[in-house]
This record gives sequence, C-alpha cells and structure tokens, in this order.
Amino acid sequence: MGQVADLDAAAAVFNWDQETLMPPGALNSRAETMAGLSSMSHSLMTQASTVSLAEEIRANLEELPDFEQGIMRCFLRDFDRLVKLPDELVRETAMAEALAGEAWKTARANDDFAEFQPHLSKLIELKSRAAELYGYEGHKLDALMDLFEPGLTVATVDPVFARLKAGVSAMLDEVREHEQPDDSYLTNGDVPSETQMRFAREVATKIGFDFNCGRLDLSAHPFCTNFSHSDVRLTTRVEDDLRTCLFSVIHEAGHGMYEQGIDPRYARSAAAGGVSMGIHESQSLFWEDIVARSREFWQWLFPQFRETYMDANTAVDAEQMYRAVNLVRPGLIRIAADELTYHMHIILRYEIERSLFSGELKAEDIPAVWNEKMRDYLGIVPPNNALGCLQDVHWSFGGFGYFPSYSLGKLYAAMMWAQVQQDMPDVRSQIAAGNFASLLDWLRRNVHQYGRTRDSRRIITDISGRELTEKDYLAYMRVKIDDIYGA
Amino acid sequence: MGQVADLDAAAAVFNWDQETLMPPGALNSRAETMAGLSSMSHSLMTQASTVSLAEEIRANLEELPDFEQGIMRCFLRDFDRLVKLPDELVRETAMAEALAGEAWKTARANDDFAEFQPHLSKLIELKSRAAELYGYEGHKLDALMDLFEPGLTVATVDPVFARLKAGVSAMLDEVREHEQPDDSYLTNGDVPSETQMRFAREVATKIGFDFNCGRLDLSAHPFCTNFSHSDVRLTTRVEDDLRTCLFSVIHEAGHGMYEQGIDPRYARSAAAGGVSMGIHESQSLFWEDIVARSREFWQWLFPQFRETYMDANTAVDAEQMYRAVNLVRPGLIRIAADELTYHMHIILRYEIERSLFSGELKAEDIPAVWNEKMRDYLGIVPPNNALGCLQDVHWSFGGFGYFPSYSLGKLYAAMMWAQVQQDMPDVRSQIAAGNFASLLDWLRRNVHQYGRTRDSRRIITDISGRELTEKDYLAYMRVKIDDIYGA
Repeated sequence: MGQVADLDAAAAVFNWDQETLMPPGALNSRAETMAGLSSMSHSLMTQASTVSLAEEIRANLEELPDFEQGIMRCFLRDFDRLVKLPDELVRETAMAEALAGEAWKTARANDDFAEFQPHLSKLIELKSRAAELYGYEGHKLDALMDLFEPGLTVATVDPVFARLKAGVSAMLDEVREHEQPDDSYLTNGDVPSETQMRFAREVATKIGFDFNCGRLDLSAHPFCTNFSHSDVRLTTRVEDDLRTCLFSVIHEAGHGMYEQGIDPRYARSAAAGGVSMGIHESQSLFWEDIVARSREFWQWLFPQFRETYMDANTAVDAEQMYRAVNLVRPGLIRIAADELTYHMHIILRYEIERSLFSGELKAEDIPAVWNEKMRDYLGIVPPNNALGCLQDVHWSFGGFGYFPSYSLGKLYAAMMWAQVQQDMPDVRSQIAAGNFASLLDWLRRNVHQYGRTRDSRRIITDISGRELTEKDYLAYMRVKIDDIYGA
Repeated sequence: MGQVADLDAAAAVFNWDQETLMPPGALNSRAETMAGLSSMSHSLMTQASTVSLAEEIRANLEELPDFEQGIMRCFLRDFDRLVKLPDELVRETAMAEALAGEAWKTARANDDFAEFQPHLSKLIELKSRAAELYGYEGHKLDALMDLFEPGLTVATVDPVFARLKAGVSAMLDEVREHEQPDDSYLTNGDVPSETQMRFAREVATKIGFDFNCGRLDLSAHPFCTNFSHSDVRLTTRVEDDLRTCLFSVIHEAGHGMYEQGIDPRYARSAAAGGVSMGIHESQSLFWEDIVARSREFWQWLFPQFRETYMDANTAVDAEQMYRAVNLVRPGLIRIAADELTYHMHIILRYEIERSLFSGELKAEDIPAVWNEKMRDYLGIVPPNNALGCLQDVHWSFGGFGYFPSYSLGKLYAAMMWAQVQQDMPDVRSQIAAGNFASLLDWLRRNVHQYGRTRDSRRIITDISGRELTEKDYLAYMRVKIDDIYGA
C-alpha cells in the first residue's frame, strides 16, 4: 500500500506540476512518465504476491483490530475492483481514452460532434464491458457510479433526482417572475490578479485551510490535489468577475480541508483520501455554498471585501452582496451554473448516461436529446454542441457515472448543515463573527477523520439518522429564494 | 529501464518541489515518499528477473547494433555496481547518511565538529566497505571516485593535481603583488529580485537554454535538475552582489543545455543523463567561466547590463566589468571562490579524502589538517570549523570522491576551449556579437548528444587527441591573470 501510495503521489505531483508550471515542450515526455508510473502502480496491485496477500488478508479480516480492519477493507475494495478487469481491457481502455481526449479537444474547438462520436461510442462499449465484469444487480450504470460513489445505484438516485427536479423546477418558475438583483459592480475588471489571490488566500486561511501544509497557485481550471495529508495543493483562476477567484478558492479549500483532516495514521495506506466524490464535493460545497453564500458570511467579510475591491463611494452593502452571490440565472454551462439550476445540468447528464447504458440511446443521439432536455429543464437551447454536449471533459476520459456526485454533494451538504444547526445553535452568529473553528471541528469529527474507512451512506446516516434525501436541500433553497427573490 | 527512469524522475520532481515550493509542514511525509520511491527503484534493479535479464544482455552484448549496445553498456554498469552491495549495507548506509545529514546541519550551525565526527567516522567505515566490494586496483578512493567520474583513479589525479597546484600557487603569488580592481559598484544592493531574475533569464535564453523545455525558479542553493530531456529546471538565488544571480544562472544553464542536448532516443533509458560529474561540470563552467568571464562576452553584454543595473552617471566600462568578474581573492569558502583559487579548495579536500581512505588519517584529525592546508595553499586560516571543514554538505551524504569532479570540470572545459578556437577561428568575435549558436552546436556535437554512452576519457580524447591535462587550463589562466593583474 505504501508503494502504491508513493506512486500515486508521484503521479499527483507530476499532474499538479503539469497544470501549474510545466514548460510546454515537456508534454510528450511527461505523458510517457505518467503512463509508466500508472502501469507500475497497476502491476503492483495485480502481481501474484499481492493476490496471495489479498486472500490471506480476506481470510483473517475479522480477527484484525478495528483500525487495521478499516484499512484492509479499503485495500480489498481496490484490489477486488482492479483484478476484475483483464490487462487487455485496461490497456485498450487507456488507449481509447487517450485518443478520445485528443478528439474531444478538437471536436469542442471546432464544434464538430461527429469527430468525437466514434470515440464516445467506443468508450461506451468498453465501459459496458467493464460494468459487466465489475457486476451489478440493477442497472448497468450502477457498476460505473460505484467507482465514484461506492454503493450508489440507479434505484436510489432515480426517486431522489425526480423529486429534486420537481422542486428545482418550481423554484425556477418563481425566480423567472422576479427581477434580478444588480451585480454589475462585481465585474469591473480592473483588480490585479495578485490582489484577488491575496484576498482569497486570506479568506482560505481564515476558514481553516492550513497553509503550513498546503499551497495556492494559478491554473487554467481550479482543482485540489495532494501528495500527502500534509501537502495539499489548491489552484484557482482569476477573471474579471470578482466572485470567480474567491469562490473557487473557498471551494477548493473545502476539498483541501477534508484531505488535511483525515487521520494521519492512514497516511500511505488504502484508507487515505476522501471516501467518495459525493462526500468530497459535499465538503467543497459546504464551504462554497452553505457558508460563503450565507448572509452571515457577508456580514463578516463584506467590510474587508469592500475595502479591497471597491471605490469608497460605491453604494453597496452586505445585504446586496449576499443577493449578488446568490443570483439564479439559467445558463448553458454547467461549471458556471448557480446553486439551483446546477442540478438540472446534472440530471440531464445522468438521464443521458442511464439511457446510454440501458441501450435505449446511442452516442449519435446525444446532441438532439441534450438540446431537448435543456429546453425542457432550463428553457434554453444551446446554439451549438460546443456549448452543449461537448462542454464537459468527463465522458472523454470515460468518466460515466461521475456526474451524479456533484448533485449528491449539495444534498449531503444540506443534510450536514441541518444537523450542524442543531448541534451548534449559535453557528450563524459564529459565521457572522468570522469564527469558523467550531464548524471545521464538527466536519473533522463527523466526516474528515475517517478517510475512506466509512462509506458515504454510513457517514450521512451517522450524522443525520436518515438516508440520502433532497428534502434538506430544497428547504434550504426555499429560504434563500425567498430571501433573494421574495416579496 | 523505463520504470527506473520514471521512478528517478518522480524522485527528481519531488526534490525540486521540496527546494522551491513545498509547504514546510510536508517535510516528514515527503521524506517517507522519497524513501519509498528510492527503495522501489533499488528493488527493480536487483530483483531476480533483472538479474537474469542482465546476464542475457551481457551474453549477447556484442551482437547488438551499436546504438542498443551503447544503452545496454550503461545499464550493465549501473546493474553491476548495484548488485555488488548487499541490501544490509545499502540500508545501513542510507540510515547513517540520514543521521549524518541532520548532525552536520547542527554541527555547522553550532560550530561543533565533535558532534559530526562520529557520524563521519561511521560513513568512512561504511564507504570503505563499499569500496572493497566495488573493487579497485590502486587506491581505495578509486572505487569511490568511480561513482562520480567513471574510471578516474588516484594514479591519474595525483600528478595532474600536483602540477595544477604548483601552477595555481605561482599565479596566486603574482596576484598578491598587485592591487585589486574596484568592484564596489556591483554590490549596491538595491536591485529588485525580479529585475535580476528577468535579466538572467534573458541571458540564459540568449546563450541557448530552451525555456520551452525548461524553467528558472528561486531556491536557497542554485541547482539544475531534470525530469526528462524536455523538462529541465534551473534554480538560482539573488543577493546584493549583482554577479551572484547572473553567474549562477549561466552556470546552471550550462548543466541544463547539456541535458537538453542529449540524443532524445536515449530518453527513459540508462543512457540518458550526463556521463560524469566532471563532464557535467565542464559544461556549466564552460559557459560560466570561459564564455561569461571573457572580455568578448562583456563587450556584448555590458551595454544591456549597464542599462538594467546602473545609474546613467556610473563611470564603468566593459573592460572594467571584465576585470570585476575575474577578481582573484583567496577566501575561506569553496562555493564563493574565484576561478583560480577554487582548485586549492578542491585539492585540499581531495588530499584529505585520499589520506582518510588509505588509513593515514582519522576523521578526528580533519580540522587540524584542514586548517594547516588552508594556510599553506591560500594563506588564510578559518577562524572556526563552520567556516572550515564543516562548510560542505558532501561528506554528510557520503559523497567521498566527489570533489575532484569540480576541478576536472575546469580542466576539461579548458581543453575543449583550446579545440573550439581551432575549429571555430572566429569564436571570439561571435561571442562579442552575442552569437552563441555555433558554439552550442559544437558542444552538442562533441559532448551533449552522447549522453552516458561515451565516457569522459573518450569524449575528451576524441575532442583533443590528448589525455586529461592541466596545461590548457593553466595557459588560459595565464592570459587572464596578465589581463587583470598584468603590467
């Protein structure tokens, strides 16, 4: 496990370096190095000595103390998944994904779905074969969602997403009847990158990201990675819109604080890292949406924000800022979507994936279905596929089943928030005072510390006493929509 | 070989990151990751399947085409060296080096040789055992010098260094009789770091370092590393003295251009990288000393240097600058030494190493011998051991036999320069015009391209038709000393 962790850390540092610092001419040699490390990691996990070790562990699992047992269950989960796929399929998939990645970039740049379509068809076929080998009880997509959110099934998601869609749709109808708050003062475009980075860094420090064990840098797309629990790297981008850098950094710091909060005794073991994409996203969204889009947060931060970014005579107050960071506006692009309409982008993708893997839909049908659903759910139709079904990278790397994690993250975060408010009745005034230590401690105790040893269902039921539900999220949004657009 | 190269590249990127960017809290987890990668690389090279592969390659070596044969000879050289040491000794040495490294830092900080001495004794004992296992014909130090400069022996070095010492000593006596040129205008201390970095970067670009396949960053001590031939990283530091950053960058760019010039077909094989420390140093010193301390170089660069760094009314010209970058001043510190007295620092260390490994000298005798030799060779005695025998990191990582490479680098560079002037009669006017392309091309053809497939003796005899000699270096310095200090 230590060796696999070291190889994964090496791949992560190369990947971070590639996004932030790598000279352009190094692209090809870097790809070779990355492929080499990945193949070594795969060989380590599937070699004969690992196979016999895994069987020995499995036979003696119940006799291990709880702590070791937790780690070994994570190891066996990884092992069982890896050995189910023959080397042949792994290699063919890696090759197809590499080609699809390049084809997707060109297809998106040229708005040419036909160029990407054969690659997409090939990946769907390969992932179908993988799903059959992994095995599933209900829907074929279950086997793929399990890679990102262990245990998640279409049978669980379908009813939740149906109610979520209805709730979002109703609120969206209300929003449409009201005027939008003014937010033009947030896009004045003349604030230097260094100022925005410094401010975002101060806020990240304040909410609890530990820069003694982390960094913040620039990259084309914001992300968070880590090379150990004590070396967590955030990246962000800076745009004219003053919300972009700040909210990206808070989001990535949410991911980063999760990694920093995992029990260090899990370091270099299969139990290190976040347990699922959904729980990881719940942590980034907890800070980005629930905390940083709250009225209390802006009561605390607005004076500093104003001093850093605004003319002395700009007539804006904390309440207006609260409204401006909570605007709901249907748009074409998922990653630019607001807290409410974001789900429609996810549900659309999920429904397409579900049909692709049940065989009802073919890759070539995607553009038409995409545009139809965009009109139904958000009332807008993409003018081209580049702004439609070609916008996301996920399918080009074979990441089918990944998208639901994003919406689950919001639902988990809302369930956590409901419990936080019971456990910490003064949490809102703590936020208004810029005091986040108790809140972070709550997340550390209830989520972070466990690493991969507790699955998302266990985490969320231990916290809330309930199964996954959209109710808390819809109730939370109900208040916000009333705040922003209410009478 | 690809896997070993990938692991080495991973160790290199982690090391570079540690020196330039790593958050301080990551120190321990980083050390664990590095140890893990190093142990994987060692296991790969010594595992049973590699052993049988190596024997198969050895048995069929002569039948391979030249190109493959060159690579396989490099592989066998690495393999043969590694398998000679039992795992037990490798582990014990790694542990002793780690402890010695920490002890050295404290000892140097507290000027306490007694703290370092037992570690040094232990390392000398371990390296003696390694030398016996590697094997040697003449002196035990031969087996250790071979790690840095394959084939180098005490029998070769002794007469060369004896004549070098005499020559340097004679010139130093002459220098002592003359006044020093003024260089106070180079230490005004108010030039921002960004300005110095930008200027150094422009010069590095101009001499031929390819920033499309490389970077320049800041670190505590300048170094050059690479993660492939197309990803070469230089670092430097900035001080009040305007020479520090510029000459460091030119030096490191010399190393970097060597790596960038190696035949890319050797990538991810045992033939990638520079062939020896001496040849590597010859490339950095060729650019730093022979080119960048030449009169013609400053005829070209001085107008730009003046415009960037000096007041319009500073009365300095290119000729004065040429003198200021060629000052000879005996000092205590090796890495701050000038082109001439540098050899005395090396010869002193070499003579001590030679006595340590012949058994004539014990670790505890080093401070006294060091100070005595400093007085004899440079006429100055260190006021304490921190500025004397504790100044260098090399012995603390067991790098006995490394120091001669530095002086060899200067001798090789002078031998190359003698040949360059014959092959390119207009080379001086090319330098004066800021045109370095033909010069770099000459080094590419005669040195860089071969990677590790030609040893330093072959490289230097192919170029010059002669064996290693100090003659060209002394002749080159003779002219310079006359220029700077002559009548």
